[in-house]
Amino acid sequence: MNGADLLCETLLANDIDVCFANPGTSEMHFVAALDRQPRMRCVLGLFEGVVTGAADGYARMADKPAATLLHLGPGLANGLANLHNARRARSPIVNVVGDHATYHLAYDAPLTSDIESLARPMSHWVGRAATADTVGERTEEAIGAARGTPGRIATMILHADAAWNETSHDMPAPLPQAVSGQPDQARIDAAATALQAGRRTTILVTGIALRAPQLERLDRIVQRTGARLMAQQANSRMQRGAGRVALDRVPYVIDQAVATFADTEQLILLGAKAPVGFFAYPGKPGSMLPEGCLVLDLYAEGEDPVAAIEALADAVGVTQAPPPRLSPRHSPDMPTGKLTPEAIAVALARLMPADSIICDESVTSGRDFFRSTYGAEPHDFLQLTGGAIGIGLPLATGAAIACPDRKVIVLQADGSGMYTVQALWTHARERLDVVTIVFSNRRYQILLGELKNVGAGAPGENASRMLNLDDPALDWVKLAGAMGVEAARADTAGRFADLLASACRRKGPFLIEAMI
Amino acid sequence: MNGADLLCETLLANDIDVCFANPGTSEMHFVAALDRQPRMRCVLGLFEGVVTGAADGYARMADKPAATLLHLGPGLANGLANLHNARRARSPIVNVVGDHATYHLAYDAPLTSDIESLARPMSHWVGRAATADTVGERTEEAIGAARGTPGRIATMILHADAAWNETSHDMPAPLPQAVSGQPDQARIDAAATALQAGRRTTILVTGIALRAPQLERLDRIVQRTGARLMAQQANSRMQRGAGRVALDRVPYVIDQAVATFADTEQLILLGAKAPVGFFAYPGKPGSMLPEGCLVLDLYAEGEDPVAAIEALADAVGVTQAPPPRLSPRHSPDMPTGKLTPEAIAVALARLMPADSIICDESVTSGRDFFRSTYGAEPHDFLQLTGGAIGIGLPLATGAAIACPDRKVIVLQADGSGMYTVQALWTHARERLDVVTIVFSNRRYQILLGELKNVGAGAPGENASRMLNLDDPALDWVKLAGAMGVEAARADTAGRFADLLASACRRKGPFLIEAMI
Repeated sequence: MNGADLLCETLLANDIDVCFANPGTSEMHFVAALDRQPRMRCVLGLFEGVVTGAADGYARMADKPAATLLHLGPGLANGLANLHNARRARSPIVNVVGDHATYHLAYDAPLTSDIESLARPMSHWVGRAATADTVGERTEEAIGAARGTPGRIATMILHADAAWNETSHDMPAPLPQAVSGQPDQARIDAAATALQAGRRTTILVTGIALRAPQLERLDRIVQRTGARLMAQQANSRMQRGAGRVALDRVPYVIDQAVATFADTEQLILLGAKAPVGFFAYPGKPGSMLPEGCLVLDLYAEGEDPVAAIEALADAVGVTQAPPPRLSPRHSPDMPTGKLTPEAIAVALARLMPADSIICDESVTSGRDFFRSTYGAEPHDFLQLTGGAIGIGLPLATGAAIACPDRKVIVLQADGSGMYTVQALWTHARERLDVVTIVFSNRRYQILLGELKNVGAGAPGENASRMLNLDDPALDWVKLAGAMGVEAARADTAGRFADLLASACRRKGPFLIEAMI
Repeated sequence: MNGADLLCETLLANDIDVCFANPGTSEMHFVAALDRQPRMRCVLGLFEGVVTGAADGYARMADKPAATLLHLGPGLANGLANLHNARRARSPIVNVVGDHATYHLAYDAPLTSDIESLARPMSHWVGRAATADTVGERTEEAIGAARGTPGRIATMILHADAAWNETSHDMPAPLPQAVSGQPDQARIDAAATALQAGRRTTILVTGIALRAPQLERLDRIVQRTGARLMAQQANSRMQRGAGRVALDRVPYVIDQAVATFADTEQLILLGAKAPVGFFAYPGKPGSMLPEGCLVLDLYAEGEDPVAAIEALADAVGVTQAPPPRLSPRHSPDMPTGKLTPEAIAVALARLMPADSIICDESVTSGRDFFRSTYGAEPHDFLQLTGGAIGIGLPLATGAAIACPDRKVIVLQADGSGMYTVQALWTHARERLDVVTIVFSNRRYQILLGELKNVGAGAPGENASRMLNLDDPALDWVKLAGAMGVEAARADTAGRFADLLASACRRKGPFLIEAMI
């Protein structure tokens, strides 16, 4: 057994059996080890942003880490933007980044770079396996770091000689499962006291608290206490639709967010952060909270959110009653006429199958989806958590691999979709059950809005050439076809609904270019 | 004038009048400033790897920096792989990376990250413009850092409030031109003495010494001294073809490289590094030099290479005679039969027009090109210098913008081409005179070779799924068409030659998918 085999066995012993990969020469012994071990499912991405975004989607749906395999500093660099999103989503991921043989670093060969410096901003843990004999421990440390609650990004740098040298290490045994800390009773009591103090309270939620059972318990708490329940603006995964508790999110637009919290006297955070502007704007506040608003955390990082919510329910006297208020199924009429973002949202609300997984990178064009789908079939809703565009298509890749029996639907803005368009190839390669809806408006719509906001007036030549995508127009049907994904274009609401209905009936990847 | 205007004016005052860009909200005031300033040519890339690779290609051909405009940490991260290549090419680039308003950083908004840590591994200089009043100085520092000899990567982080606040700064004046240091006479003398000592000597060259006039002078030196002239394995830009001095490069394959230097007793470096393995392999050496080989630098970084070569010529007694030995024009017969990498090389040797710019990211498939084109029309040959794949199409983008009257030809491996395939859109958008030749072998050929080298035998299921690209096959004609670039497929040598001939006669982007 060499170091690469030991790495592979350590991952498998700890139930990490999917590896999203784009290897290079320095990782070739790890590739050979993976080749000897058919229990590991290896999924190729044609660019590392696909690899890391897929690992994020997988982690969000499987509730456990996948491994990634990346080629030295530049390979890691290509995956960093989606690791940034995964870090904000608190997804567990174990990155394996190859590096030169230890003794080769001194030569400063062309691909040498400072991998730690690159890794650290997007990782919670960075380590180096420099000898075959330490690969096992280092991998265990990485796995331990990744799979806490909430999840973390662990990046292990694997030297080529650590991979290829023999080790006398035993076959690895599984690590004990991560155990979350018990919630701090003082925090629970403080939150309960605050909730019962007669002040206008918002409970702001993200993470595991957005799963259906936790939301049901939270709905009972707010029924009992009169608080308002709300989700963060962007969340890793949210269970919603018919039969689920309906809750709103903090708006993206600053003025709306400020208005949302104008009356809030106290804010109780469940894994969430106190709401701030996505960007700063001259003359606008950074915090969305009114002055003097009291902010409490129900639990600290590492404490068990489920236990904390249960304890809060007990503390405020929630028993079995009242029952949670669940959204009824509402199936709107099929849209007709012009194809608009709203028509797309309505068609989805009507047609998407139960247990769909929605990967939302629709940016401006998908804002109708959320409000249109409270009564859609129950679904999981996955968002862009870190603002680094190019996650939609990769996220769907990972979600589909984690949940092969569920339909994955991507709401994809065209500008963002181009960032990691290579993911379509993996959809085809792995026969993933993913329907991609491209909102084809042929511009960076959000930026045209922002340009207007800075008072620059109508865009001139230079601004227009940086913000419009209409010359030439991207042909998404051809792009998909070039990578083996069937596709069709919709110009009307009726045609869109027909295409969506047929895509939902079949299995396998399909792309709809929605001309909005 | 706000900080963003001052930045724009400072760039223009220093002859930086091209900005490769993919902006976001935090850069919107800079976008507005660029929009007010039509002298700046703004070129959009649909992914940041296109932006930075284009800036590299531009710098190599224009011998001056372009600016880039990148969106916070993730936007920079997406551009890092090609900045790694540019850093290895010693291309001057001034990156402008937007960041939040200074006071907004404390909120840790979703897009916040440690930009310095990301920038440093791929930058020679990193700075921050935190106030409008310091934008001018900081930009001047960045420009000064970038445009030395050789060039450097300067990364300036521009806070949003530094961009939008007013400044009372004067209109900037041009900085004095960078002046290279005079070469150190002791080094010149040492090299001259070594050359005349009767030992087997290789002069290893890269950078500016690979331009035609320098190579002519170097050829005179080696005729006089009996030394061997050779180029580094990968070079930023090399002038070659008919009417130019012919010189070989260090081979990529380790055993060949070791054999190349087996007899070398002393090595004189002209901007080059002593040759080392691109990767380490078990049981193979890291340095390509025989033990005891003497290594001398003709000049240190910052010293003037042209003056140093002149001084060396003087020191070894080169006068006007002998004349340099220049390659004659050799136009091979048109290839026929099966389409092979060799047939492609022969067709190029026959057909490529004078002053073509060749951007080579052909990896394994293009190895015939170099040896087939000593007698081709004179051309500039640009290589992948840092080993981070995904540079070919962006490099061509920048080269074509720097040299609008010259034909740019990209030799593009299919696997690498997918990394930054979005560059094709910019070829179409800017009507660039670029012919892209995709070597479509539908696999990571180099890695299949490396897998064999590690003794893993025939690839099994997992290795095959990470190294083969044939399921589904990529359709490059459709990919190009989807992004507005005309394209055609060649299955035979004759068809390829016909397509190449017609592509060379016309202006504008064209892609040939070469089925090899």
